[in-house]
Amino acid sequence: MNVGIIGASGYGGVELIRFLNQHPKIESINLYTSSEEGVLLTNHYPHLLNGDTYTLRPLVEAELSGQVDTVFLATPPGVSSKWSQWLLDQGIRVIDLSGDLRLHSQSIYETWYKREAASLSLIKQATYGLSEWNKDTIQSSQLIANPGCFPTAILLALAPVLQAGLIDPASIIIDAKTGTSGAGKSPSQTTHFSEMNENFKIYGVATHKHTPEIEQELRAFTNEEIKVSFQPHLVPMVRGIMATIYASGVEGVTSKKLYDCLKQAYEHHSFIRIRDIGDFPQTKHVYGSNYCDIGVAYDERTNRVILASVIDNLVKGAAGQAIQNMNLMNEWEEHTGLMVLPVYP
Amino acid sequence: MNVGIIGASGYGGVELIRFLNQHPKIESINLYTSSEEGVLLTNHYPHLLNGDTYTLRPLVEAELSGQVDTVFLATPPGVSSKWSQWLLDQGIRVIDLSGDLRLHSQSIYETWYKREAASLSLIKQATYGLSEWNKDTIQSSQLIANPGCFPTAILLALAPVLQAGLIDPASIIIDAKTGTSGAGKSPSQTTHFSEMNENFKIYGVATHKHTPEIEQELRAFTNEEIKVSFQPHLVPMVRGIMATIYASGVEGVTSKKLYDCLKQAYEHHSFIRIRDIGDFPQTKHVYGSNYCDIGVAYDERTNRVILASVIDNLVKGAAGQAIQNMNLMNEWEEHTGLMVLPVYP
Amino acid sequence: MNVGIIGASGYGGVELIRFLNQHPKIESINLYTSSEEGVLLTNHYPHLLNGDTYTLRPLVEAELSGQVDTVFLATPPGVSSKWSQWLLDQGIRVIDLSGDLRLHSQSIYETWYKREAASLSLIKQATYGLSEWNKDTIQSSQLIANPGCFPTAILLALAPVLQAGLIDPASIIIDAKTGTSGAGKSPSQTTHFSEMNENFKIYGVATHKHTPEIEQELRAFTNEEIKVSFQPHLVPMVRGIMATIYASGVEGVTSKKLYDCLKQAYEHHSFIRIRDIGDFPQTKHVYGSNYCDIGVAYDERTNRVILASVIDNLVKGAAGQAIQNMNLMNEWEEHTGLMVLPVYP
Amino acid sequence: MNVGIIGASGYGGVELIRFLNQHPKIESINLYTSSEEGVLLTNHYPHLLNGDTYTLRPLVEAELSGQVDTVFLATPPGVSSKWSQWLLDQGIRVIDLSGDLRLHSQSIYETWYKREAASLSLIKQATYGLSEWNKDTIQSSQLIANPGCFPTAILLALAPVLQAGLIDPASIIIDAKTGTSGAGKSPSQTTHFSEMNENFKIYGVATHKHTPEIEQELRAFTNEEIKVSFQPHLVPMVRGIMATIYASGVEGVTSKKLYDCLKQAYEHHSFIRIRDIGDFPQTKHVYGSNYCDIGVAYDERTNRVILASVIDNLVKGAAGQAIQNMNLMNEWEEHTGLMVLPVYP
Repeated sequence: MNVGIIGASGYGGVELIRFLNQHPKIESINLYTSSEEGVLLTNHYPHLLNGDTYTLRPLVEAELSGQVDTVFLATPPGVSSKWSQWLLDQGIRVIDLSGDLRLHSQSIYETWYKREAASLSLIKQATYGLSEWNKDTIQSSQLIANPGCFPTAILLALAPVLQAGLIDPASIIIDAKTGTSGAGKSPSQTTHFSEMNENFKIYGVATHKHTPEIEQELRAFTNEEIKVSFQPHLVPMVRGIMATIYASGVEGVTSKKLYDCLKQAYEHHSFIRIRDIGDFPQTKHVYGSNYCDIGVAYDERTNRVILASVIDNLVKGAAGQAIQNMNLMNEWEEHTGLMVLPVYP
Repeated sequence: MNVGIIGASGYGGVELIRFLNQHPKIESINLYTSSEEGVLLTNHYPHLLNGDTYTLRPLVEAELSGQVDTVFLATPPGVSSKWSQWLLDQGIRVIDLSGDLRLHSQSIYETWYKREAASLSLIKQATYGLSEWNKDTIQSSQLIANPGCFPTAILLALAPVLQAGLIDPASIIIDAKTGTSGAGKSPSQTTHFSEMNENFKIYGVATHKHTPEIEQELRAFTNEEIKVSFQPHLVPMVRGIMATIYASGVEGVTSKKLYDCLKQAYEHHSFIRIRDIGDFPQTKHVYGSNYCDIGVAYDERTNRVILASVIDNLVKGAAGQAIQNMNLMNEWEEHTGLMVLPVYP
Repeated sequence: MNVGIIGASGYGGVELIRFLNQHPKIESINLYTSSEEGVLLTNHYPHLLNGDTYTLRPLVEAELSGQVDTVFLATPPGVSSKWSQWLLDQGIRVIDLSGDLRLHSQSIYETWYKREAASLSLIKQATYGLSEWNKDTIQSSQLIANPGCFPTAILLALAPVLQAGLIDPASIIIDAKTGTSGAGKSPSQTTHFSEMNENFKIYGVATHKHTPEIEQELRAFTNEEIKVSFQPHLVPMVRGIMATIYASGVEGVTSKKLYDCLKQAYEHHSFIRIRDIGDFPQTKHVYGSNYCDIGVAYDERTNRVILASVIDNLVKGAAGQAIQNMNLMNEWEEHTGLMVLPVYP
Repeated sequence: MNVGIIGASGYGGVELIRFLNQHPKIESINLYTSSEEGVLLTNHYPHLLNGDTYTLRPLVEAELSGQVDTVFLATPPGVSSKWSQWLLDQGIRVIDLSGDLRLHSQSIYETWYKREAASLSLIKQATYGLSEWNKDTIQSSQLIANPGCFPTAILLALAPVLQAGLIDPASIIIDAKTGTSGAGKSPSQTTHFSEMNENFKIYGVATHKHTPEIEQELRAFTNEEIKVSFQPHLVPMVRGIMATIYASGVEGVTSKKLYDCLKQAYEHHSFIRIRDIGDFPQTKHVYGSNYCDIGVAYDERTNRVILASVIDNLVKGAAGQAIQNMNLMNEWEEHTGLMVLPVYP
């Protein structure tokens, strides 16, 4: 199969290349651009030098049509809204890593993203690509809205215990922490090494765009309107997300029940690893891999359930899950090309 | 004035030396040990080489009596319980940086610390040294239990808004993050650079020793039994604590009311800096200094108050506050010897 | 093919597992221990949890004989000297990642390593496994002494230009920098996060064990006695080595000649990437991969050749090169199981 | 005394404020700007909030004349060339932290800096402010060219042994490593956290601007034309420089002779600490302080002298030395306002 990437010069794009490059079903990776035609990606990323040319090709029909079966959009806001329909019309499957098509409601999108939403017709074609939960709809879809990095870590931990009714949906507080690569490749004062190293920052207080995405999908699991407090922070590291999730337990909940619930939910999903009771994951346990590791405890003293969920934001939180979705769409084994162990230490 | 330090070879100890060395009221710093007599501290810490000898002297009456007015105990658990009374009996004031004497209840101590508590008579002599709040009792005390690093950051943020009745005391969740220096000087797998760098860890889930200390002191502000969810994490940085505190707001609360409450509480306390509404502190903003910076927001959508409080765990969270307490005990200006600006970047 | 690892609980061991796990020719990975029988490696390394058991098995004939074709020794000094002959006698090929068998001279070994050397008979059976240069002898050998991490980075850069006579062999100064993972898994004051972060250290001044290994192998390329100044430093990062190499140029040398010489030497070796003139590699360009990237310049003003060579110390500097040698011994494609792109950023 | 700072919004500027703020002889710190009049520096740097306003004032005669005795220029290239004479003409002493006035030769400046040099008349008024070596000329000067960060670390180590004739001046190779703060406050791809963390970089190969400064000053010590190979690298840390210096020893040189030479040179200079033979400094040993720590060894095997010199690039390499020079110009104790211990860990 031949695939295309639009937006290859961002971190999501190069991470797609890292995995697609060793994917046994992929024959060629074609890179497209609307602004940097002819540029060699290896000029920006010498780590890619391996014999392939990685030349950015113009984003025109002649270059795409009949050449690629699936296109990954690893692009800034607004690009997917613009190009997805054109790609779909050429019979190309689209996996969109941006946030353009995740929210069903245009008004909610516009409230949180402060920009114009995609057309409703496009939004309606999109399937939310949380691989472990939406397998059937993903398989029959031509357009995937790949989940955000925070929502991935959070939903994978919350979905089972919410569905099982083990926590009070009104009580959820999520304190999330991410490495800097989630902020992308463009330099800024916030991610300037001299001001980010030996520093820990809180940002987007009560205003992060992933909030409505989390709430929309939690509702999908529970058929209830759920509001969450979601608060991200920036950690002086490059890769990794930990979401620490707090919720009140329902009567009778125990650590064992929570653990069993999670274990059972993912028993056929090799990328989700539930840690033994009393054991909690660290972000480095999933570094560079598509795993999501989840630990859980119930604190009887305060009646609080504590979940800790870790992913590599660029893999399970972006490129890895996108490829997992491509695998599902093609009815290949879910983990094809993705079964690498974490890089440790 | 002449002071002594027991436990100078730990990080709390060397941080005391850094500040006492430039304190205008201190004539001599005397280091005592029960196990390393005659050792030069500069062998462990060449950064201290500045003409002073820093020789560790034996911990015996002849060396202390009449030689020092105040002794700082920067020692592991159990040492203060053992030595404090002996020091007090010699007319020496004691400032204890360990956790031995902070909890009023022996049984709570033993539950959380998993070791024998200090004697009740000793505990009763101790004043909890949260400088900004307990000034009067500190001034008249001979024995200070210097607050823990997490409790300092947390209590300074919570005390005003709890006292003012702006939040629901039953709803408090504290997600705290600390640099590694809080774990002390002894190497361990957890703080091994290869496993701590590019890593973010959760630890002590629902079991951290600072929990009962926070709860005891919150009760002191409110005369109510308060239980908090307190969850610490380890950040790949050396210095700094951020406590992100979540609580439900009472009816009518606004960001402005919260801000005004905090601002007013600390208007005469130069070490506590309340950040403008919408502005939040970073740990590096207080690096190496005795400041505590606090930001606050009210999220109407979820009715949650969010407080972020940052300190340098070794300064305001340990040595700095200890010296601030020494200043208070001597009726010197609170900030004597402590008015250094943060090291930035 | 079935392989065994002795010393799997060290960083070299887990890195072998990461690559062998996805090696298409490997059927099973068997872990052996003389002291931790029955222990699950996943207890130490939860990142490995992927369905495999990773149980440490006893190091006895019954467990090895007929079970494994090749054994990797990722062990502390002294272990290979003891076990290699026993393994060879059972018809098992041995790839030794320790420094026990690299030096031909017992007395030089004992001078630099300050411990007893392996037997001469064992040393004589060992082939120095610098994959790109010793392919023929590696293919016919049963026992490989896998090169040290620093020597790998240094020899790959120096060998071509020394052989081509472009630099003065008497003038070589090597200033090397390494991440902390080279120091292994055991915590120490040196690699304690609080003292290693925001710190840069020099160590082993003029006494590092890799010095005689570098000199021995340079002699192999030139048939001349060569002495080098080799000085390592410790960088606050986990993975990566950069060797900056200085030497006086011979008359007529230019950047172009140096570049051409390197380019030609490695034109059939895909793991060695020579950077364009004026472009220099960074350690992150090879992170997690088996590449060695080399940059070169000639400074006419001072008549000095400057080479910068980077590797991932745990991959090309240890586990990756060991697997590359296994590939050569089996006449498989050199890069089998190793063609992963670097993890970037 | 009242002082002014032009360029206060850069890292050199805020570091000046940190030290001047606690300097016992300084009454007021006045900040000037030609482009940001009225801006509060605390908007950029909330860590400075301490009651002072830090308002940037216009750079006009009325604001300066009679208001300030000394002005520090912590400005980008070209600014000092433009403003220094104007300041001097108003009877204001000038301490220039930029590189504009360090080189005596305009043509050498233009070759290395690739921009127009300052006027010769201005250059001739400037004294090179290497505090420990040029005390007399500094005291009688109105205009100080404050040394570059790398030259400071390097010259302090090399001057004594070169003057004593212990090394061969033609053989000097300097491999230098710096934290990122030397690159200043402006974000760039090079200092983007995601690409700088877990990375080690070489830069400015054989072309760094500090090279002619080092050579000019070495000549001042020896009256010989000396060329050095100077090669800087970027370390994933914020503060700190280590220069590792290699040179051939002259006949009869020993570690002891080198040590004695250094020790004697600095016996009356408290900021320069010579480490015992066999002991080497780390950058963290001087973090946040004005110390320069130097270690030395002689490697008989290769006849090479190895010197390692560390400073905090923003203190002894910039703001600290500038204040030290101000102290000298005013005949105050050299260390006034600068005797802070390093921040460790």
